[in-house]
Amino acid sequence: MAELIVTHGTILTMDGSDSILADGALVIENGRISAIGDTKKVAQHDPGAEVIDATGMLVMPGLVNTHTHLGATILRGISDDVDGIEWMPLNWSVTRHTTQEDLYLAALLGIAEMIASGTTCFSDSYQDIEQTARAVAETGIRAELASGLTERNGRKDAQRLMEQARSFVAEWNGKAGGRIHARFGPHALYTCSTDYILQARQAADDLHVGMHMHLAESPLEMKTVKKKAGETSVQHLHALGVLKPDFLIAHALTINEQDIRLIAEDGSGIAHCPQSLGKLGAYPFPAVDTWIRAGIHVGIGTDGVASNNNLDLFEELRFASLTRKLFARDGRVLPAGEVLRMATVTGAKALGLGNEIGSLEAGKKADIILIDVRKPHLAPFHNIPGLLVYSALGSDVDTVIVDGKVLLRNRQFTTLDIADIMERVQAAFQALLKRAGWNLNLAEPTQSMATVLKLKATQQSLKIFQALMENRQSKEESGV
Amino acid sequence: MAELIVTHGTILTMDGSDSILADGALVIENGRISAIGDTKKVAQHDPGAEVIDATGMLVMPGLVNTHTHLGATILRGISDDVDGIEWMPLNWSVTRHTTQEDLYLAALLGIAEMIASGTTCFSDSYQDIEQTARAVAETGIRAELASGLTERNGRKDAQRLMEQARSFVAEWNGKAGGRIHARFGPHALYTCSTDYILQARQAADDLHVGMHMHLAESPLEMKTVKKKAGETSVQHLHALGVLKPDFLIAHALTINEQDIRLIAEDGSGIAHCPQSLGKLGAYPFPAVDTWIRAGIHVGIGTDGVASNNNLDLFEELRFASLTRKLFARDGRVLPAGEVLRMATVTGAKALGLGNEIGSLEAGKKADIILIDVRKPHLAPFHNIPGLLVYSALGSDVDTVIVDGKVLLRNRQFTTLDIADIMERVQAAFQALLKRAGWNLNLAEPTQSMATVLKLKATQQSLKIFQALMENRQSKEESGV
Repeated sequence: MAELIVTHGTILTMDGSDSILADGALVIENGRISAIGDTKKVAQHDPGAEVIDATGMLVMPGLVNTHTHLGATILRGISDDVDGIEWMPLNWSVTRHTTQEDLYLAALLGIAEMIASGTTCFSDSYQDIEQTARAVAETGIRAELASGLTERNGRKDAQRLMEQARSFVAEWNGKAGGRIHARFGPHALYTCSTDYILQARQAADDLHVGMHMHLAESPLEMKTVKKKAGETSVQHLHALGVLKPDFLIAHALTINEQDIRLIAEDGSGIAHCPQSLGKLGAYPFPAVDTWIRAGIHVGIGTDGVASNNNLDLFEELRFASLTRKLFARDGRVLPAGEVLRMATVTGAKALGLGNEIGSLEAGKKADIILIDVRKPHLAPFHNIPGLLVYSALGSDVDTVIVDGKVLLRNRQFTTLDIADIMERVQAAFQALLKRAGWNLNLAEPTQSMATVLKLKATQQSLKIFQALMENRQSKEESGV
Repeated sequence: MAELIVTHGTILTMDGSDSILADGALVIENGRISAIGDTKKVAQHDPGAEVIDATGMLVMPGLVNTHTHLGATILRGISDDVDGIEWMPLNWSVTRHTTQEDLYLAALLGIAEMIASGTTCFSDSYQDIEQTARAVAETGIRAELASGLTERNGRKDAQRLMEQARSFVAEWNGKAGGRIHARFGPHALYTCSTDYILQARQAADDLHVGMHMHLAESPLEMKTVKKKAGETSVQHLHALGVLKPDFLIAHALTINEQDIRLIAEDGSGIAHCPQSLGKLGAYPFPAVDTWIRAGIHVGIGTDGVASNNNLDLFEELRFASLTRKLFARDGRVLPAGEVLRMATVTGAKALGLGNEIGSLEAGKKADIILIDVRKPHLAPFHNIPGLLVYSALGSDVDTVIVDGKVLLRNRQFTTLDIADIMERVQAAFQALLKRAGWNLNLAEPTQSMATVLKLKATQQSLKIFQALMENRQSKEESGV
């Protein structure tokens, strides 16, 4: 028995054939697509099914955000226009004051923003990920959630985090009707030792789940790792047997040709987050088209809003294509169709979900978005990939379906009370800044971040961060 | 007598003080701001005035788009993902088939898109600009319109265009209640001879209007001009006395330190169009922050949709800041407040309208936008410049006022019938492609542009374009 039928849409399947159905329909049963084709042929009348008329709409797979940190959504705007090296300690000086309720509200806000801009699945790594899982379960979105691991607060805390991650996997993996998959999330090579990462790899193997880690993030990381291990970050993890198809790499700015071959060989995915790189002035800007040609599953990610500052994948698609063209000095690289694949079918593969989501095909999960193309910026209507990547806005998304359930309809949320969430977020944010000792004057919202950076707390964190980046490894017996 | 009063808004004045009014009001009389301040103080009850309650809204100056080509709006999506050298002939192969009605519809569509995303004033240069003027007059937006000049179709046609430009200035300058200013628009140094440009300069001086020209667009232009004139494009026009405060330069990619000094000295403005550079893979990417420090009035422009593919300045603001940070490898350059100035007060100065628009001050024209900040992607609410530049969407614009008249309210147009325009644009677009001999199959919208490029008409245009770029100057007696 069909539960939902979408009729009369222009359907972009992303199933590899690049085919477009001009008057297409989708039938959904038990949360999966049971049929797809011409409206006249497949949309049999089924009295029990809800029907969504998609006239004037483009119907496509929900977008996949391969790297973000929803716990940081409450930090939007606190660390703008700063140098890359200042950014992380600036955020840490606030995040250490966040409560579980802050994290829950931040996740709800982030999920609302993602649903409203067409994202149906996201991959997150955060030190306290449980509140995000709770918000995912409640709101109906799909997620790969990595429980964050770091040794930056000492070995005792690191083991506490490892236990927390094991518990998280035991409690949440496969939950929310299968919408949640759990992972282990070692933060980075400059905050986790080799032993600690191997411990996470073993635990992930034992529990049959994946991993998610920032890697090859900066020239400074490359220099430090090479000095200690005599090889690159990727070569180091490859030699240790850590890289596998269930391993997701975030960023990968500094990878060389050999690294690219190793990642392709190991089958690991990469999350490319171009706007976040822009926010922090990160370099070198990666040639993602060469990664794709090497056979790596490269997805698109927004990163957290503290370094973006939004979770809108339409913004990320446009930025990914245009910036790569600028650095390649060639308008032909990363064409619209290619970045659309990154945000759908390839992004799904990078998360190990290629058989379940990422394209509209019979048998796959019903994760679907409807985009209202009756807008001046989407006319004339032709060249659909071009319109989606170079002209569309997240706010053109009219309807969002995950697992066959409607989460957004006529741009109204069905599973969350956005006015209430925003009110609670605002109060929590102001209380959080106060606890963090920030003298940020909300009545003067143009206050320069330079003022903020003078705060003692930030300066202390900055020193800790620099020590981590430059000296930490020498204190570890086990090398990098 | 007040005609319109905006109350209870958070007002970002952009008047140089970076001040924010938390519960602010604006009083509008005869199309100008007559008072601005706290709602309680300035918003006296005036029974004849329309009142707009801006609770939950951010109130700021309307955005200024310093460089676009509305006649090309109908070409959206026809030349995606191509090499820079192929792009212009690809468009020319279609534009030579456009009718006056096509241009009128294209202008209406572009104006609708701009109003819907918060632009209240734009600067356009196009070979047939009269239909754009007609659309500006009808819709209520403000514009600087340059009548395009080129010698690429021979001397006879070039003189026809010069006469057309003179007639355009005579007929349209200062019209539509002063909302339209006319200019002379020599296309570029590779399509206009020195004599022709000097003729335009003389005409502009005689008629007391400005000029608008693409300049220093590519390394190829730089090489060609240096070979012929022994100096850069900027030095060449400076030496001829063409650069003045009423001269607007589009792009300026290849300008050197001396060029920057000359432009600052002459007082000419520059329109920076970063997304268009991305679309075409243009280089070198300009260090606009150094231009600003040199005292040049640098505005933001979208360029035409054929190379963008949208007219949304919020997209352009975000892209301008993030790309410059990437190329500078420094997250501190072009901070949010700086790019907001480019799109408002400085953009207005680049167009010679600094005394009339660009900030909210008593005495200035009432060109105002209201942005609905009650959206998940704009929470928590603080750091207004950061929210506007790194998170806001054009679709967050709720209300648009130009010259004191409301053009958009609750996102509904008051001066145009968008459904009718879009229907006519679609029909005109399909007829245009047919006339141009394009075999573009609208039923297969993912068709690669490589297929299109094989078309004979395009190949012919490409040859003409290459000849223009490489050999044209040698045929001219008068040098560059």
